[in-house]
Amino acid sequence: MTQSDDVEYLHTWIGSSDRDHITVAGRDLPSEVMGKLTLTELAYVLITRREPTPGQRRMLDAVLVSLADHGLTPSALAARFTHTGAPESIQGAVAAGLLGAGSVFLGPAGDTADFLAAALHEHGDTDLRRTAERAVDARRAAGLRVPGLGHPVHRDEDPRTPRIYELAAEEDVLGPHLRLLEVVAAVHEEISGKHLPINGAGAAGAALADVGIPTGSVRGFVLIGRTAGLVAHLAEEAAEPVGMPLWLEVEHRASGHTDLD
Amino acid sequence: MTQSDDVEYLHTWIGSSDRDHITVAGRDLPSEVMGKLTLTELAYVLITRREPTPGQRRMLDAVLVSLADHGLTPSALAARFTHTGAPESIQGAVAAGLLGAGSVFLGPAGDTADFLAAALHEHGDTDLRRTAERAVDARRAAGLRVPGLGHPVHRDEDPRTPRIYELAAEEDVLGPHLRLLEVVAAVHEEISGKHLPINGAGAAGAALADVGIPTGSVRGFVLIGRTAGLVAHLAEEAAEPVGMPLWLEVEHRASGHTDLD
Amino acid sequence: MTQSDDVEYLHTWIGSSDRDHITVAGRDLPSEVMGKLTLTELAYVLITRREPTPGQRRMLDAVLVSLADHGLTPSALAARFTHTGAPESIQGAVAAGLLGAGSVFLGPAGDTADFLAAALHEHGDTDLRRTAERAVDARRAAGLRVPGLGHPVHRDEDPRTPRIYELAAEEDVLGPHLRLLEVVAAVHEEISGKHLPINGAGAAGAALADVGIPTGSVRGFVLIGRTAGLVAHLAEEAAEPVGMPLWLEVEHRASGHTDLD
Amino acid sequence: MTQSDDVEYLHTWIGSSDRDHITVAGRDLPSEVMGKLTLTELAYVLITRREPTPGQRRMLDAVLVSLADHGLTPSALAARFTHTGAPESIQGAVAAGLLGAGSVFLGPAGDTADFLAAALHEHGDTDLRRTAERAVDARRAAGLRVPGLGHPVHRDEDPRTPRIYELAAEEDVLGPHLRLLEVVAAVHEEISGKHLPINGAGAAGAALADVGIPTGSVRGFVLIGRTAGLVAHLAEEAAEPVGMPLWLEVEHRASGHTDLD
Repeated sequence: MTQSDDVEYLHTWIGSSDRDHITVAGRDLPSEVMGKLTLTELAYVLITRREPTPGQRRMLDAVLVSLADHGLTPSALAARFTHTGAPESIQGAVAAGLLGAGSVFLGPAGDTADFLAAALHEHGDTDLRRTAERAVDARRAAGLRVPGLGHPVHRDEDPRTPRIYELAAEEDVLGPHLRLLEVVAAVHEEISGKHLPINGAGAAGAALADVGIPTGSVRGFVLIGRTAGLVAHLAEEAAEPVGMPLWLEVEHRASGHTDLD
Repeated sequence: MTQSDDVEYLHTWIGSSDRDHITVAGRDLPSEVMGKLTLTELAYVLITRREPTPGQRRMLDAVLVSLADHGLTPSALAARFTHTGAPESIQGAVAAGLLGAGSVFLGPAGDTADFLAAALHEHGDTDLRRTAERAVDARRAAGLRVPGLGHPVHRDEDPRTPRIYELAAEEDVLGPHLRLLEVVAAVHEEISGKHLPINGAGAAGAALADVGIPTGSVRGFVLIGRTAGLVAHLAEEAAEPVGMPLWLEVEHRASGHTDLD
Repeated sequence: MTQSDDVEYLHTWIGSSDRDHITVAGRDLPSEVMGKLTLTELAYVLITRREPTPGQRRMLDAVLVSLADHGLTPSALAARFTHTGAPESIQGAVAAGLLGAGSVFLGPAGDTADFLAAALHEHGDTDLRRTAERAVDARRAAGLRVPGLGHPVHRDEDPRTPRIYELAAEEDVLGPHLRLLEVVAAVHEEISGKHLPINGAGAAGAALADVGIPTGSVRGFVLIGRTAGLVAHLAEEAAEPVGMPLWLEVEHRASGHTDLD
Repeated sequence: MTQSDDVEYLHTWIGSSDRDHITVAGRDLPSEVMGKLTLTELAYVLITRREPTPGQRRMLDAVLVSLADHGLTPSALAARFTHTGAPESIQGAVAAGLLGAGSVFLGPAGDTADFLAAALHEHGDTDLRRTAERAVDARRAAGLRVPGLGHPVHRDEDPRTPRIYELAAEEDVLGPHLRLLEVVAAVHEEISGKHLPINGAGAAGAALADVGIPTGSVRGFVLIGRTAGLVAHLAEEAAEPVGMPLWLEVEHRASGHTDLD
């Protein structure tokens, strides 16, 4: 189990460094990456091992900005509360915020990508109507919800969804996942009688799949945008705290005090 | 302490949403951000409340890609080991990787930015030689190291540093922090007799300060790049695991077995 | 949605405090808990709202000590690597170690408790043979493994399992979950022809269910023991580091160097 | 750097396992630890390498229960919010809660232990009045607060403090750290004219030092109690959610709505 007798299993394609060089994704970091690739492009290269086309890059950024925290979400609040107790550790506060990016709010991006990819694999993309019907029926038969549909706030339409489809058409990256998702939403409405719009995370997952992100990496990819949002929340928290006053209010109310106390 | 009598303290500039709209940084997300700003640009806007110039944007991306994990670092290994025990939770593995981005490896970016900004504030930028001498003397008198200098591997020169200065000159963002850092390195070498090159994290911190990132947000900002690197490590780990075999080897060796067992 | 019109939803039974008092689990902390309840007893009270009997308490501690990290596990290594990068944040290193306590290593405790509880609920406890057969058949039919059986290292018997059953008998807490688990193991061996011993996490989960821990809290309960182990690993790491030398060895081998370099 | 030529650096005293045995702290886990040591006792053994006396054990438990989360603290809220977004990952929610156990709320336990130990080391324990004066003067001269004093809620007396001293006297573990802390509080009040009571975290830190916990491990040790409290909060959250309704209220108020909307 040492390197003398066995094949070395310790290696990574991601990068390496020695005294005078640093390589990332097979490229010399200073001369071929710094000033040449944006962070979004590097993230794509590291995951897919090829550079995105301009159209793919535009879609990648659109997806990432669409899923950065835009309000006082549970994960932004968790990050802010962590800052309240440990202001010296920004990596702790960011980590705490990311830990809430699970099945409820960010999971749907990856779940939708997986669902669409599986349906396409199983039923093909020549008759999307049929593929959608079979995929939706299978979910309903198993008592499961269809990923990518519905939103607790945006009940008529998620404002991000039409923009994702518009950009995808503009950049010629409107592929089988996005097209199937539209049909899935229509089929679901016909079958259930309920209007559940395509949500932003679902459209994002389909869009990422259509630009070549493996579906197993979709959920991780969107975390990059989430980190940016959390860093911004923490910058604001340091200047205009919400965590401390909210905690004091919660504590006050939880111990039974009314306004008059 | 309720909203009836007091000013509402719950608010954020970062964004908000209602049934039909989502705003981020004061902009309509679908029409003014998606397809218009890259993730790096949005991160800058959220922290500084203004859009970066093209030159600033190029430097921001250069810094972020320079600090993404390029090898099997302790934080990449922590993320991979977390995946070994909890492959179902990618946000857990990414969070675990970020938690190692503390004082030893990523802290220097923010520490250097703070150090340079404090020196400029206290001693001005008209005579950088004098400012550098005073700042270095103060650190040495307090028995502290000078942030931004030295690297355990890149003992002659950190390959990222000349590239950061080159890009900064090209894009006209070579400001007082970067210029002071050069003088600090020279002064330190004269005083100590030891050659400690400007390290990549230090140059990154100075560069971010020169493009307008508040020094208190430098450390958080570089975490965005770190997240991208960790997501890539986890994508590779899922396909070519390092965590499980490394753990088995560690366990084997820790229980006293030799090659012949 | 404010306290003036609606029922206050902000409350917790766990505890509260005001200027002169602190209550925990409905008890005055200084006079009724400190010096009266051990941590294990308090944890049980907080989850079940009653105090454990002496026999239940002995089993709770036995389970917790049995699942504290006893070697350089992936989660201990993740904690140590986090300490390498962020020695200033012990809560970060402990958190990183806990994040690996997921489906692979610690999940089986809760999964087994859930599995046994569901089987007892569905098929009763009067004929454990029949209950076990139906539960095992259902898992196999769904292509799923039976929780609580098998261990990659302890292939004949997990040394913790007979001790859990011995203590349970001594303390008269050998209940339906533990008894069903034995029958499940026997049935599984007959059906599959393979000997998969009851593993320590599975026995622990069954034992916790038999002393009254709701199965949904089993997985969280065992984290308390895991935290103690991680704190101990980090105390040792501060004095005898493993993270830094292991990282340097990994980096050395990953860049293709052999012993002779 | 391989085991053939160099001393093996991979080892841990914490424990090990092979096919038929598991050892923890040099003891056989099933026969010498399970049913023999409580979790609190094992934690002490792992950190100090000796078993606690009954009096020490009673104090250890008293400290741990005194610092478990007793209300809706920022870290309990962070854990609950993480559960809101990722209910499938209890280890993520517990980790998020622990990440807030930093310098503000839990740090004082370790800071106080370090402060007292340093003062005793530097000025001795034969004249505690003098030692206290010198230690307090040094902090004030450096513009620093004295650790262990003051509490935002318990302004007259922290209810936990007299109980810790009472138990310490009962169990004959009232040692130099606790005694020095009393004198420090008195000296500080004389010098500053302000009454700052000894807070619970400070008394806990002094008590842990007096029972033999190395001051560098105090902060980690109290995390064990914090984990128990967080697990309890999450059990309650699953049944009576606070995270979701609080988030909805926060979002409602942050977008400028009043009661009448």
